[in-house]
Amino acid sequence: MAAACTFCRVIVGQLPSALVMADEAVVAFLDHRPLFPGHVLVMPREHVETLMDLPPGDLEPLFGAVQRVSRAVEEALEADGIFVAVNNRVSQSVPHLHVHVVPRRKKDGLRGFFWPRAPYAGDDEMAATAGRIRAALRP
Amino acid sequence: MAAACTFCRVIVGQLPSALVMADEAVVAFLDHRPLFPGHVLVMPREHVETLMDLPPGDLEPLFGAVQRVSRAVEEALEADGIFVAVNNRVSQSVPHLHVHVVPRRKKDGLRGFFWPRAPYAGDDEMAATAGRIRAALRP
Repeated sequence: MAAACTFCRVIVGQLPSALVMADEAVVAFLDHRPLFPGHVLVMPREHVETLMDLPPGDLEPLFGAVQRVSRAVEEALEADGIFVAVNNRVSQSVPHLHVHVVPRRKKDGLRGFFWPRAPYAGDDEMAATAGRIRAALRP
Repeated sequence: MAAACTFCRVIVGQLPSALVMADEAVVAFLDHRPLFPGHVLVMPREHVETLMDLPPGDLEPLFGAVQRVSRAVEEALEADGIFVAVNNRVSQSVPHLHVHVVPRRKKDGLRGFFWPRAPYAGDDEMAATAGRIRAALRP
């Protein structure tokens, strides 16, 4: 536990939350400023900052819980779909890894992917970008 | 493989892509209309529609690849952070599960979380919403 971390304090019960589930590895509770009602935050009990920092053995417990919560939110809120997202460092308000699970509806006003998107200038630029990422891949 | 699925056709090489990585379980390539250059799609070879449909044993291979690709994108593109997201059904353009890995920068113009957020009307509404989701949770 990180004593100064808001989510660690929720996990150990020092701060209140609207709990959705908890097991030995994972805790899930409602975001208090939801995109839509039923917006859940699913997170490891262990304090790690980003998804990149999570030990590989903790991936299945965390994302298995994300699957369970996603199905439950979809059923309970009668949603048409589920948006799952992790902000790592940029736009991450609390530096304790948390997975957003958000109910979506076909006419919820969030068209497309929600951000402007544009194609690459050409195939050469695209191939060069892929090459830079491949060169930075580690085992 | 689903013969009519665009991503299955990329995975087996029937359609071209700017490949980032491939192993026995996972393939990753550049989105051709990125939010920002270096926007990668990471997906299971197996054709499943949503994250909720993925067999639990496939979670670690998929999200382990997401971790590797996230670190590589961050390094190669000199990003300040990484946005990871899955659209399930709503806003999902291709019905083959894919995880978006997007480089972010502190001043990239996407302030806050990117969508309007509002608190619950009160604690009662929040508690009732959490209760509905808990009641729909399955093992």
